[in-house]
Amino acid sequence: MPSQPSKTLERFSNPHPERDYVVHMDLPEFTCLCPLTGQPDFAHFMLDFIPDQHNVELKSLKLYLWSFRDEGAFHEAMTNRIADNLIHLINPRYLRLLGRWYVRGGITTDILIEHRQAGWENPHLLSQLPPVHWAQHQPGY
Amino acid sequence: MPSQPSKTLERFSNPHPERDYVVHMDLPEFTCLCPLTGQPDFAHFMLDFIPDQHNVELKSLKLYLWSFRDEGAFHEAMTNRIADNLIHLINPRYLRLLGRWYVRGGITTDILIEHRQAGWENPHLLSQLPPVHWAQHQPGY
Amino acid sequence: MPSQPSKTLERFSNPHPERDYVVHMDLPEFTCLCPLTGQPDFAHFMLDFIPDQHNVELKSLKLYLWSFRDEGAFHEAMTNRIADNLIHLINPRYLRLLGRWYVRGGITTDILIEHRQAGWENPHLLSQLPPVHWAQHQPGY
Amino acid sequence: MPSQPSKTLERFSNPHPERDYVVHMDLPEFTCLCPLTGQPDFAHFMLDFIPDQHNVELKSLKLYLWSFRDEGAFHEAMTNRIADNLIHLINPRYLRLLGRWYVRGGITTDILIEHRQAGWENPHLLSQLPPVHWAQHQPGY
Amino acid sequence: MPSQPSKTLERFSNPHPERDYVVHMDLPEFTCLCPLTGQPDFAHFMLDFIPDQHNVELKSLKLYLWSFRDEGAFHEAMTNRIADNLIHLINPRYLRLLGRWYVRGGITTDILIEHRQAGWENPHLLSQLPPVHWAQHQPGY
Amino acid sequence: MPSQPSKTLERFSNPHPERDYVVHMDLPEFTCLCPLTGQPDFAHFMLDFIPDQHNVELKSLKLYLWSFRDEGAFHEAMTNRIADNLIHLINPRYLRLLGRWYVRGGITTDILIEHRQAGWENPHLLSQLPPVHWAQHQPGY
Amino acid sequence: MPSQPSKTLERFSNPHPERDYVVHMDLPEFTCLCPLTGQPDFAHFMLDFIPDQHNVELKSLKLYLWSFRDEGAFHEAMTNRIADNLIHLINPRYLRLLGRWYVRGGITTDILIEHRQAGWENPHLLSQLPPVHWAQHQPGY
Amino acid sequence: MPSQPSKTLERFSNPHPERDYVVHMDLPEFTCLCPLTGQPDFAHFMLDFIPDQHNVELKSLKLYLWSFRDEGAFHEAMTNRIADNLIHLINPRYLRLLGRWYVRGGITTDILIEHRQAGWENPHLLSQLPPVHWAQHQPGY
Amino acid sequence: MPSQPSKTLERFSNPHPERDYVVHMDLPEFTCLCPLTGQPDFAHFMLDFIPDQHNVELKSLKLYLWSFRDEGAFHEAMTNRIADNLIHLINPRYLRLLGRWYVRGGITTDILIEHRQAGWENPHLLSQLPPVHWAQHQPGY
Amino acid sequence: MPSQPSKTLERFSNPHPERDYVVHMDLPEFTCLCPLTGQPDFAHFMLDFIPDQHNVELKSLKLYLWSFRDEGAFHEAMTNRIADNLIHLINPRYLRLLGRWYVRGGITTDILIEHRQAGWENPHLLSQLPPVHWAQHQPGY
Ligand SMILES: [Ca+2]
Ligand SMILES: [Ca+2]
Ligand SMILES: [Ca+2]
Ligand SMILES: [Ca+2]
Ligand SMILES: [Ca+2]
Ligand SMILES: [Ca+2]
Ligand SMILES: [Ca+2]
Ligand SMILES: [Ca+2]
Ligand SMILES: [Ca+2]
Ligand SMILES: [Ca+2]
Ligand SMILES: [Ca+2]
Ligand SMILES: [Ca+2]
Ligand SMILES: [Ca+2]
Ligand SMILES: [Ca+2]
Ligand SMILES: [Ca+2]
Ligand SMILES: [Ca+2]
Repeated sequence: MPSQPSKTLERFSNPHPERDYVVHMDLPEFTCLCPLTGQPDFAHFMLDFIPDQHNVELKSLKLYLWSFRDEGAFHEAMTNRIADNLIHLINPRYLRLLGRWYVRGGITTDILIEHRQAGWENPHLLSQLPPVHWAQHQPGY
Repeated sequence: MPSQPSKTLERFSNPHPERDYVVHMDLPEFTCLCPLTGQPDFAHFMLDFIPDQHNVELKSLKLYLWSFRDEGAFHEAMTNRIADNLIHLINPRYLRLLGRWYVRGGITTDILIEHRQAGWENPHLLSQLPPVHWAQHQPGY
Repeated sequence: MPSQPSKTLERFSNPHPERDYVVHMDLPEFTCLCPLTGQPDFAHFMLDFIPDQHNVELKSLKLYLWSFRDEGAFHEAMTNRIADNLIHLINPRYLRLLGRWYVRGGITTDILIEHRQAGWENPHLLSQLPPVHWAQHQPGY
Repeated sequence: MPSQPSKTLERFSNPHPERDYVVHMDLPEFTCLCPLTGQPDFAHFMLDFIPDQHNVELKSLKLYLWSFRDEGAFHEAMTNRIADNLIHLINPRYLRLLGRWYVRGGITTDILIEHRQAGWENPHLLSQLPPVHWAQHQPGY
Repeated sequence: MPSQPSKTLERFSNPHPERDYVVHMDLPEFTCLCPLTGQPDFAHFMLDFIPDQHNVELKSLKLYLWSFRDEGAFHEAMTNRIADNLIHLINPRYLRLLGRWYVRGGITTDILIEHRQAGWENPHLLSQLPPVHWAQHQPGY
Repeated sequence: MPSQPSKTLERFSNPHPERDYVVHMDLPEFTCLCPLTGQPDFAHFMLDFIPDQHNVELKSLKLYLWSFRDEGAFHEAMTNRIADNLIHLINPRYLRLLGRWYVRGGITTDILIEHRQAGWENPHLLSQLPPVHWAQHQPGY
Repeated sequence: MPSQPSKTLERFSNPHPERDYVVHMDLPEFTCLCPLTGQPDFAHFMLDFIPDQHNVELKSLKLYLWSFRDEGAFHEAMTNRIADNLIHLINPRYLRLLGRWYVRGGITTDILIEHRQAGWENPHLLSQLPPVHWAQHQPGY
Repeated sequence: MPSQPSKTLERFSNPHPERDYVVHMDLPEFTCLCPLTGQPDFAHFMLDFIPDQHNVELKSLKLYLWSFRDEGAFHEAMTNRIADNLIHLINPRYLRLLGRWYVRGGITTDILIEHRQAGWENPHLLSQLPPVHWAQHQPGY
Repeated sequence: MPSQPSKTLERFSNPHPERDYVVHMDLPEFTCLCPLTGQPDFAHFMLDFIPDQHNVELKSLKLYLWSFRDEGAFHEAMTNRIADNLIHLINPRYLRLLGRWYVRGGITTDILIEHRQAGWENPHLLSQLPPVHWAQHQPGY
Repeated sequence: MPSQPSKTLERFSNPHPERDYVVHMDLPEFTCLCPLTGQPDFAHFMLDFIPDQHNVELKSLKLYLWSFRDEGAFHEAMTNRIADNLIHLINPRYLRLLGRWYVRGGITTDILIEHRQAGWENPHLLSQLPPVHWAQHQPGY
């Protein structure tokens, strides 16, 4: 049976919960619909997290992102919703999600979300996260 | 009915006020008039904010920027006015606005404004804001 | 009396018509209206020409570009119209105009126009024109 | 009535058929389905053409690209089909289409298509086309 | 049934044999064995071709490259063999294969192969092929 | 007797345990199998460590990495396992391992692991570690 | 009456004294005379300030810089004098002036001046000032 | 028996003499002695060739380069000698050797040698050779 | 009377001792003799200082640097001597001198010297000094 | 006996006159005196030649360049004189000399000289000479 889009994110047990480590995922393939006009919107997500007891399963993440293809969503709400679903799924020590949305009305919008578990900290590891690559719209260069 | 320029900025409820997150907008299309000579001025704005209870609605922001097309305004006053209107509209936890004004009289002027709610702070999130891209005027290169 | 927008381009006699030489002008400040929606459009023009008996007068060019501020125009027609007006004014040996129009509908459009006088050629000089800086739209980098 | 996806590309009369000029369009928002697995595919197109009697209308091009959102298509066939439809619509003097398809099976595929009218040539103008930005997949840098 | 490595390359009919167009594929995942020592070798291939009556099918190409995982092969012979198999399969108008082999004995080796059908030519299209990215070994930078 | 893959990492006595110093190793040649599909996976590892009483022996590290060629492993588990084996072998003062896994399902995944001995610190030396080169997936540039 | 050079800097009331914001000006057009030899000197100034009750008026600044065209001045004295005049005029919360003087006697000289009001501080805003672009003389590359 | 330096270059039969293809080798590890002072000299060689009936065997090339470790040689003579030995060994259709010698007496010397078989030509393939990376000595940046 | 080399550095009164400011000088033209062989040595100096009651006079500095043209000096001694002479002359609040000496014996040597007055400090100003551009010798790229 | 500056350039027999090959030398250490003021001048030379029956001997070239240390010379005359001396010495098939003189009077001067033997040509080899790196003086960036 071929793959189907699905809202069901899956997780697996973190094989090394005794240690803080970073998982960085680049997710350039996302599209949904504009809730006002019904026209397609596109975004490129970047995800970083430090797992606690669970990790997100890669294939389910792909199918999950696919599942928004025919849904309407505002930029802020969608970016927060994806972050919330991931946080609810794996309750990570730290999570950061950047949503870079393609230009609309001549305006480019990026959304950056950060979450951390109460009481958790690891400043040296956080200082080595990838720099955030914000959209850099250069009409006319 | 087609779109019209409008001073009325609109807002919507922040779908996730329980969390600090950054909205970054690149606004390269702005023009107004010089209050002294009546000639056109151009600017490229960059906006970052961390919403509290409200966000700015994208289309109304576009129409709002359009509404200055036939008005005269000094660089400092206009940049502050836009910041003030946004702050009044959404009362953000943090807001930063950069106005990069095109060269006049051989001089390039950039204006950087920062605002934060009394008592609010989130140093780690602020440290991940986009770097400010100041104008870099290179005559003769 | 302050400056006014004007369709009247002015010219002056080329002080050195005995020689082929290049004039390169960067014109980042242009705005007109979309003829379908009435909303503002923005473009950044780049102009190169090799004069024959006349050159375009700089201040009149500024007022000329200003004069389109409240007119509707399609990208292709406007770019060609500006090129035509300049060609009609100064009948240059060579002229190249690039119009880089800001993104609309998720699509960036650039228009490149070239004109040369019948019988004129100067391949070595043309090979040293500035490279054309086409728009390079990078959503999500 | 809101916009709808549509296979009907529209054209308008070239306002300046007496002249060769280049129209360059950057089209980063394209998605269709894999005809074998039904999963989403993404591509970023770049289009250059020199019109003859007609140009492609921008909004119809946006709706046309949207219309493939729920269709299955092979990379080579889809890229050629889009080129064919544009050629059939406007019969351009020259057209070049690059389709950069996102990585599948660890392999990145780009397709470059060129077309020109029998007998037409303009080597100097063609030499100023944008360089082709081929995909540059760098896993592990 | 899961995928298996396979020497059987598959092809499909070129949907547009009436036209010359380029297919560019980036193939960074290749490993075989050194025929002298039995130790693993790695290479990164880049492929460009202009199809005639057939194209190579993407998934079969992936499985084909996989099939060398446990075979011994010299760099020159392997690169030529892959080129030969592709040429035999699809008899392309033009094909270029670059094999960039990882450093061995302190020496980096790249192999570049070109093939074209007797009598075929299309200089303008060939001039737009991607530049060859030769290995650039920089010990000590 | 030719070299054989081997799980036995070897170590030698640190010739200068009286001093903190960094060893940086770039390990671009790694392949194993996907535990779900049996298909090949590729990764590029980067290792930094500050030895205590022992260092890892280079040739045994090569044979060790080779030993996973025919084993199935999840990205997170494999990256942690390699880090664990090295830590168990040499009990370093500090160790950092980055695993950059090639794109699967349109998603690029990097894993960053840090370990340090209880009580050890050397902030100035750590501040001079190589920057982490996270994967930077750019489909469509 | 045409513009004249003038030592009279003009100011206007800061429209938003309730807020700290940065004004950045790039002033690449400055020339005076060497007080020893009478030959022309050139400098490129960069100015950043955070206004208190007043701002400097742009046109008067242009005419002020012009007024030194026929005066002799040492580098250090001139750079300090301009800073002093601006500080006296607008009593800013913060001011930074960089004078980059063109090479003389084979030596390039830059002067950096900083001033702040007693008791004023805003570390976060200062941390976002443009980096200082010191002259970088590269004879022989 | 362990490897030994050796002047004996070995060759193997070109597996595909029916085709012109390029072999590019980067040879950064070379040292010999200065014939005047007996001090060590270092060079970085880059080799490109198009084989005819034979190719050079990689390991013998490594041992051959090693064999000069304790010999004195002038830059020009050594570079030509290596080229000659390779040409004599494999009689290639084309061969290019660049010797980049490290700075001596404040002077950097590079030697570029080209050879081709009488009557052989393949302009399109030659146009795709790697660009020559000449030494670029930058004392004082 | 023409200029002559001279060991006599001259100073002038700091026109603004009430303020800390940085003077940055780039001094690429220096040559002396090797004290062992009598052969020429070359260096490129970079100087930063914050004056107290005096500044160094530019022309005397040029003549001073010239005065070493026929003297022998070791790298470390010469760099320290220049720093000492400047410190003795103007007793600066802060001074930093970088001497970048051209390659000798295959080795590039840079010397960095720092001095500050007892009790003086200005961390914010020091944090804005130019980064030190150490020599980066790249034979063989 | 230690080295002495000397006008006597020495040559040795080209070990491979049967072949055209390029010798490229980077000569960053040159100083002479200004014939008008007696003050030091500095230059950075780059030399390329294709020898015929002789090559220039490296050490004598160093001593030759040294020999101008106390002589006055105009830029154009000196650059031509060095080229002439080399041409007279070795009668090369081709020679190119670039002299990049340090800034004087705010002006950077480079001199480029080319020579070739009557009747000699080798277009393919010449097309691979290093690009000329003209001085690029950027005061004020
Ligand atoms: Ca970006
Ligand atoms: Ca712009
Ligand atoms: Ca700028
Ligand atoms: Ca410049
Ligand atoms: Ca652009
Ligand atoms: Ca991108
Ligand atoms: Ca790309
Ligand atoms: Ca790689
Ligand atoms: Ca490479
Ligand atoms: Ca290095
Ligand atoms: Ca990467
Ligand atoms: Ca993209
Ligand atoms: Ca500079
Ligand atoms: Ca230099
Ligand atoms: Ca180099
Ligand atoms: Ca090197």
